[in-house]
Amino acid sequence: SGLVLVKNPHLDLMEEDVLYHLDLGTKTHNLPAMFGDIKFVCVGGSPNRMRAFAQFMHRELGLAGDGQDVADICAGSDRYAMYRAGPVLSISHGMGIPSISIMLHELIKLLHHAKCRDVTIIRIGTSGGLGIEAGSVVITDTAVDSSFRPRFEQVVLGDVVVRSTELDKDLAEELLACSREIPDFPTLIGHTMCTYDFYEGQGRLDGALCSFSTEKKLEYLRRAYAAGVRNIEMESTAFAALCGLCGLKGESCGFPLL
Amino acid sequence: SGLVLVKNPHLDLMEEDVLYHLDLGTKTHNLPAMFGDIKFVCVGGSPNRMRAFAQFMHRELGLAGDGQDVADICAGSDRYAMYRAGPVLSISHGMGIPSISIMLHELIKLLHHAKCRDVTIIRIGTSGGLGIEAGSVVITDTAVDSSFRPRFEQVVLGDVVVRSTELDKDLAEELLACSREIPDFPTLIGHTMCTYDFYEGQGRLDGALCSFSTEKKLEYLRRAYAAGVRNIEMESTAFAALCGLCGLKGESCGFPLL
Repeated sequence: SGLVLVKNPHLDLMEEDVLYHLDLGTKTHNLPAMFGDIKFVCVGGSPNRMRAFAQFMHRELGLAGDGQDVADICAGSDRYAMYRAGPVLSISHGMGIPSISIMLHELIKLLHHAKCRDVTIIRIGTSGGLGIEAGSVVITDTAVDSSFRPRFEQVVLGDVVVRSTELDKDLAEELLACSREIPDFPTLIGHTMCTYDFYEGQGRLDGALCSFSTEKKLEYLRRAYAAGVRNIEMESTAFAALCGLCGLKGESCGFPLL
Repeated sequence: SGLVLVKNPHLDLMEEDVLYHLDLGTKTHNLPAMFGDIKFVCVGGSPNRMRAFAQFMHRELGLAGDGQDVADICAGSDRYAMYRAGPVLSISHGMGIPSISIMLHELIKLLHHAKCRDVTIIRIGTSGGLGIEAGSVVITDTAVDSSFRPRFEQVVLGDVVVRSTELDKDLAEELLACSREIPDFPTLIGHTMCTYDFYEGQGRLDGALCSFSTEKKLEYLRRAYAAGVRNIEMESTAFAALCGLCGLKGESCGFPLL
């Protein structure tokens, strides 16, 4: 049917669903009217960057006005920022798995309540490349954890629930084809490693509060590369797992920090 | 000596330390002049709340002016917001362990570079109470993970590093004594459980994207209470572990979401 799957029978029995961190809700807002025609959702860490992306989409889609005054739909909350340009929603998710996980829970319920159909969700976040040409964009085929396993572990009521982190392969190929139409836009498909920390988790000798040896770091990064990892960031396993759980066509792209 | 311990010998050999997510650095800013006299750091999730707290501290300390125009020291970055009022620094950390972990890494290096002495760091975040009077503040004696263990696990180059999550007991007692001077301010000392997710991780039947049974949820929360847990949030284990690692006197207080 193209609808978003929410496997929680409690949800439709509730009188009201408050999407607390987005400052939206089923009673306070007419979600189908506000969002029913959304077809693409783009997510990234930084609120300013997601506003700039909405302004860019506004211009690209040739919408009326210059799009500079695009309004933050979540202005009542300082947790996330959300903008729209035509059928494209642009939302920030902060940094790390817990932060993107809260946003995705509320976003996916929003898409469910709004009865959106055939939505594609694309993460356009920054990442660090691994053994690739500087400035390259990595389209993730599979997100892996810090042991290079294609899985996302979530503790639910004390039990570890394991979910798959494969992303939509057709969408990855489609995005790669798009990138080839743009000159000087090096792009590749590869695995993305997702860590729980930027400093120690990614072995940053220069930034961590503890020390570790350069040899050990190089050996670890060599093993990661051999396992197919081409970039490192902090949200992709949760993103892939939640897209998969809810039947959302999703893809994660890692952009270099310029 | 009261200085902040940074157990990374690489740090003092570097020509420049860029505290990227705070938009500060050792070459671009005179950190000792800007921050050398800081004695207290208060951290919490929301940028707006941490600005309001700095304005409150400004008034409480009787500083010149009304403090309404307090400037965001990290205005060049939209990752975190930082304000100061006299010797008190007020910083947001976003939501979840990875987000607070990045901020604390850069904050602790900032305190180190600024040669601050005898700094006390207090988390003043929101949390959900467990079996306690509504509106109570919980001062954490020990942060525990979702299996109620007093530990924080961090993957460093593929190895799991386990750190203690005990907080400063004297500081906890001192804060409890302060709370008793304020009428109608129910406060207690207890364990705080730290999860990696707000919905599934905390068993929110009404908010999760998957379903689980009410009995299982109640049984889990009963076990948590029996283990000494009095509130649940998403940052305390990382906060306690990093304070402990760097010799910072730290305490985490969970405030009810009003």
